[in-house]
Amino acid sequence: MFHPPPHLPDVRGRGFAARSALSDAVHWLEPRTVALPAEEVAVAAAAGRVLAADVAAPIDLPPADRAARDGMAVAAEATLGAGGYNPILLMEGQAVPVSSGEPLPPGTDAVLPVEATQASPLGVEALDALPAGSGVERRGDQARAGAVLLPAGRVLRPQDVGLLAGLGMERVAVVRRPRVRILLAGGPRDGRDADAALLAALVRRDGGVAEVRGPFGRAELVDALRAPGADLLLVCGRTGLGADDEAPLALAEAGTLALHGLALRPGDSAGLGRVGDAPVVLLPGEPAACATVYDLLAGGAVRRLGGRPVELPYAVRRVPAARKLVSEIGFVEVYRVRLTDAGAEPVASAAVPGLAALARADGFVLIPAESEGVPEGGEVAVWMYDAPAEAL
Amino acid sequence: MFHPPPHLPDVRGRGFAARSALSDAVHWLEPRTVALPAEEVAVAAAAGRVLAADVAAPIDLPPADRAARDGMAVAAEATLGAGGYNPILLMEGQAVPVSSGEPLPPGTDAVLPVEATQASPLGVEALDALPAGSGVERRGDQARAGAVLLPAGRVLRPQDVGLLAGLGMERVAVVRRPRVRILLAGGPRDGRDADAALLAALVRRDGGVAEVRGPFGRAELVDALRAPGADLLLVCGRTGLGADDEAPLALAEAGTLALHGLALRPGDSAGLGRVGDAPVVLLPGEPAACATVYDLLAGGAVRRLGGRPVELPYAVRRVPAARKLVSEIGFVEVYRVRLTDAGAEPVASAAVPGLAALARADGFVLIPAESEGVPEGGEVAVWMYDAPAEAL
Repeated sequence: MFHPPPHLPDVRGRGFAARSALSDAVHWLEPRTVALPAEEVAVAAAAGRVLAADVAAPIDLPPADRAARDGMAVAAEATLGAGGYNPILLMEGQAVPVSSGEPLPPGTDAVLPVEATQASPLGVEALDALPAGSGVERRGDQARAGAVLLPAGRVLRPQDVGLLAGLGMERVAVVRRPRVRILLAGGPRDGRDADAALLAALVRRDGGVAEVRGPFGRAELVDALRAPGADLLLVCGRTGLGADDEAPLALAEAGTLALHGLALRPGDSAGLGRVGDAPVVLLPGEPAACATVYDLLAGGAVRRLGGRPVELPYAVRRVPAARKLVSEIGFVEVYRVRLTDAGAEPVASAAVPGLAALARADGFVLIPAESEGVPEGGEVAVWMYDAPAEAL
Repeated sequence: MFHPPPHLPDVRGRGFAARSALSDAVHWLEPRTVALPAEEVAVAAAAGRVLAADVAAPIDLPPADRAARDGMAVAAEATLGAGGYNPILLMEGQAVPVSSGEPLPPGTDAVLPVEATQASPLGVEALDALPAGSGVERRGDQARAGAVLLPAGRVLRPQDVGLLAGLGMERVAVVRRPRVRILLAGGPRDGRDADAALLAALVRRDGGVAEVRGPFGRAELVDALRAPGADLLLVCGRTGLGADDEAPLALAEAGTLALHGLALRPGDSAGLGRVGDAPVVLLPGEPAACATVYDLLAGGAVRRLGGRPVELPYAVRRVPAARKLVSEIGFVEVYRVRLTDAGAEPVASAAVPGLAALARADGFVLIPAESEGVPEGGEVAVWMYDAPAEAL
């Protein structure tokens, strides 16, 4: 029978003698979750992926002077003095119809807009005088050969993918997606369906490939933890103080249990460790607590492995607290809130919110460890669950 | 040979006699792009989809009083007077170990935290006095049977998908994704690769299913426009004033050309129409102009068809203009800008920015039609290309 190391006693039926600071847990994970190596993917499927290396302009962009509008390519000096009341006839070959993007014909250095030309029996007339370069995009105007167009680490936007395709690239090197294995701990009666769906969706949101296995009892969990092929393991459930809360023991048996018990509410039974090189996060089975530990601990690891910005992918709004939010000194407490006219209103207690209450929330407020809470009317930062959508 | 209706003259070689307001184009599209019917998908794949109908709680949640923490379920009155210096021995059957989430055993109405109990030779002792209900989540605390948990129109969050899975649902009704057919106009030399990749990525970002066809000459384009199976058609390229700019003519031949020429820069050669019931947007081939017309016109249609919020999916930051932004009265002008210490700095002219310049932009500023522009130091709203990521 395995016994946990003395500095991490078996907490079952005893309670946590001490809990680690959330920041310590975050710092433990940081050096163990660095950006994965590159892989090549089709440019057409690269939006949202993370660029693994700088992309530089292979040639000047545009490669030659070209028309910046539809019209007549002309030698600018031939339009000298032209105007609405003084049309100037352009000689044969002095006015060449061009479409926007076409190279400038030899001998021309400006493009008259279509509206500044008219047809006459003798040929095309200019209705406006242009300086040289008007209506022309110069070679290299957008970028010089060798200039970095997109830096390594860029999360590719739709327009970036357009740029790469326009350069003639068919494949591009991006950071490999982290393979995140979600191991459900517990028996079939534990109802881990909510956790499984929740965690898989969170991992995908953060750019990972999610794979769900279980639910597992202790011995199976040890085996599943030892199975190769994951960049990060999330064990969900069986982390608490009950007799069957054997996930920390299974991790200690399969590898190393580095930390168990966090000064975080909900989510205080979370843990950390590793099996071989793969970091492991233990998440509580109560779904809202599981979501909290994912957001404040595991999510950053997924994003870091994928080369993404580690910050929470939520916009912040600063509003008053609609009522007092209490918090125990030493604990980070997470209140799910909805935004009302009065400000941020908790939808449930921090301790056991539940997913049904979470569904009513617009976001969450985080009370730092050193704070006793926020008085009614005090300003709080609300991390907003939904992406911003702004009206024009 | 088809001739366009007199109110929409062939602009090739002539120029636009008049251009429509962007707002008129948006209003034309609105009634023609309403949310599509529902389809059922697996709950596990439903994150990010749009709920087609309210989901109500089938039963009280939780369905019965249950432990809100790991500990000893007790009758609260049995702990009366207990404290650290006054442990009270609990009789056999008066203290039942429970894990968080388990139903309360009969005769108990509170849960002593593990830390507030100790073992003694005679049995379990309480170290704290509890009121009834402490450590207990009551039946219906999260939601009453019949209460709406998630409203129709909700873009399902990871935790929502967890909630649905936790209710035992395997499938859920969501708004069908719009099928958006992207038709490239022009010959192989037109280089529509950038547009194709850009538009497909934008359509996917907005929840649509993108399908790219072409490039097509005029006759093929007419046939492609008439092919069934699309909820929205985007025709890209050949919208301008050159002799080969036949996309508007092809649309008029296949269906109806409702509008050609927008008071928008870049993007002034955009158009609108329909083939049967399917709305059609004509987008310029210059990629940055194409992106502009997508964002300000087509994107809202894709989102509306998919039941999503129609607003631009960009967060706004208000900053000073780092230099003067000029704009022609009557035109909506879009400046791509990067954020510097001095504020919003254009990366290129509004007229022909190009994707390489766009890559340097953090977002865009939109100068409304009634404005001549913004002076240096004047406040502008910047629509930010990247999703917000907020540090804790």
